[in-house]
Amino acid sequence: MDFACNFAEMLKNDLLLRAAKGLEVERSPVWLMRQAGRILPEYRATRAKAKNFIEFVKTPELACEVTIQPVDILGVDAAIIFSDILVIPEAMGLPYQMIEAKGPWFENTIKSKADIDKLKIAEAGDLDYVMKALALTKKELNDRVPLIGFAGAPWTLFAYMIEGSGSKTFSKAKQFLYTQPELSHMLLEKITQSTINYLKGQVKAGADILQLFDSWAGVLSEKMFYEFSLKYISKICDALSPLVPVTVFAKDAHYAIAKIAETSCNSIGLDWTIDPATARKFSANKTLQGNADPCLLYADDKKIIEETHAMLKAFGKQRYICNLGHGLYPDIDKEKVKLFVNVVKEYKW
Amino acid sequence: MDFACNFAEMLKNDLLLRAAKGLEVERSPVWLMRQAGRILPEYRATRAKAKNFIEFVKTPELACEVTIQPVDILGVDAAIIFSDILVIPEAMGLPYQMIEAKGPWFENTIKSKADIDKLKIAEAGDLDYVMKALALTKKELNDRVPLIGFAGAPWTLFAYMIEGSGSKTFSKAKQFLYTQPELSHMLLEKITQSTINYLKGQVKAGADILQLFDSWAGVLSEKMFYEFSLKYISKICDALSPLVPVTVFAKDAHYAIAKIAETSCNSIGLDWTIDPATARKFSANKTLQGNADPCLLYADDKKIIEETHAMLKAFGKQRYICNLGHGLYPDIDKEKVKLFVNVVKEYKW
Repeated sequence: MDFACNFAEMLKNDLLLRAAKGLEVERSPVWLMRQAGRILPEYRATRAKAKNFIEFVKTPELACEVTIQPVDILGVDAAIIFSDILVIPEAMGLPYQMIEAKGPWFENTIKSKADIDKLKIAEAGDLDYVMKALALTKKELNDRVPLIGFAGAPWTLFAYMIEGSGSKTFSKAKQFLYTQPELSHMLLEKITQSTINYLKGQVKAGADILQLFDSWAGVLSEKMFYEFSLKYISKICDALSPLVPVTVFAKDAHYAIAKIAETSCNSIGLDWTIDPATARKFSANKTLQGNADPCLLYADDKKIIEETHAMLKAFGKQRYICNLGHGLYPDIDKEKVKLFVNVVKEYKW
Repeated sequence: MDFACNFAEMLKNDLLLRAAKGLEVERSPVWLMRQAGRILPEYRATRAKAKNFIEFVKTPELACEVTIQPVDILGVDAAIIFSDILVIPEAMGLPYQMIEAKGPWFENTIKSKADIDKLKIAEAGDLDYVMKALALTKKELNDRVPLIGFAGAPWTLFAYMIEGSGSKTFSKAKQFLYTQPELSHMLLEKITQSTINYLKGQVKAGADILQLFDSWAGVLSEKMFYEFSLKYISKICDALSPLVPVTVFAKDAHYAIAKIAETSCNSIGLDWTIDPATARKFSANKTLQGNADPCLLYADDKKIIEETHAMLKAFGKQRYICNLGHGLYPDIDKEKVKLFVNVVKEYKW
């Protein structure tokens, strides 16, 4: 069953889906990573209703509320479900905490085969709160714009499950890859299966398009990225892209664009260190998404307009989804974000 | 006066200088970033003699001791003077502290033109303790191997001076670039002049070759890297490369290799995300340095040998300096580092 097609037919604004599928668009769609976030006072007000981050993520009504806010307030062309990539490790049996101003922290980490054997392969039903949030959001959105579902890429989830927290180098996680390649593949396979189940559930619950975030791709060498990351991303794309379009965003994996383009993904997310023309050259058959420097939104209006225009010209109207090259920083002025969105929407092609 | 030439003539092992200058070598030289560091118990013993990191850096006898240790213990082909890139901000009037397990921290940061006006342009004499450490080390080394001097690249020093500490995104420093481009250039120019004075002093005091570390190049877009970083790196290369060979290591600036090759530097440092063949293509006229993943040294001996051989083959014997793609991690086993060094030294070309 082609869920996306059915949903897309009903959408009032399906620019994002058309762009992702390589169909013609009248203008490029625009949304922003972390648009449902601290830049909005409305988000902070909703956030205050939950006693902590995990409870916030697990309350479908609150997740739905903050997912829709940027559509109403910023005028973006898509909603992305509010959640966290670490819900998968938790559903597999490895719970985490979100420490204020520090980030995620796991009391238990994976050290041995026994630890991996103990993990379960998550089913969509284990993440019922995400499915409820998606279904509720889909209903509340009333088909105004597409709803984006997402998951962390297996390597990035693996990195947190071994390291136990964020890290500049993820040297413990990489040490595991270098010293325990077989166990690494065993764990990555379990994460991959869980992620496929999870994303299929997201599509059933209402996601029109999916994005995989490989936030820590950049700490790997090219060879290790192919062996321990892209292999599993590719499996997920194969399982999901027949259902809905899939975007792969492997941050800082500048060397891998051509190989990502060989997967069955529909679009490729780019950070701001990637030249649009170079990316086009290596991935002629894919849609590109990105890639403004989030810090551009600190600049004055003139600079924001100039640089956004230059980016739009460099990528071209078709097969392009306008976004930042990373998530919005929390201290960015909401008015600057609105300006960025409007500049894209009003651009005269 | 050609200092390098005079010193090089006297050196028993001048492989590094010949490789950097593009002269023929019988084998590739090898040294490691952070070889004078916590991986050596001998370093930790010397470190314990100083009451804190800053005092350690400022005591020439101790700096000399740890600079020579890796030559004796690891058998590397060069010594790199033990110091810190943040001695330049300090000499300009912005002192820092090194917080255990956290990294550098500045009580005062640069916020305005008045703050920049107050900074002095450092002279070599303001960093007399570094000059003394170099002179002492040069004498103690007894011409066994070349002595490497170094400095932080202007953008990286600027980033700390604005941000006040390490950061994943350096968003405050980048905000300054986006909102205060003129003041940014003013500050970068002052740092550049200070760095030129400092490095000229290092050459006089005994440095045979110099390296510029642009540790935070990777947070900049290509365009901003050229405007706010490479422009100043280029000035420093022009001032120093007539005296001794200069290596530029701009970490994560994968997009900039061809432009770095247009400066008057002699060699280019590469991190482990860069393919050797691609780097050669973009910089045929330069020596390349790098680029093993530091985490490789967690692997078993067989893997270390295999990967090091593959790297040596990929770069080729000439115009190549073997190194890691970043500094040694402190928990790496000294025996693995010795193995890496020996594999390079014993490789049959």
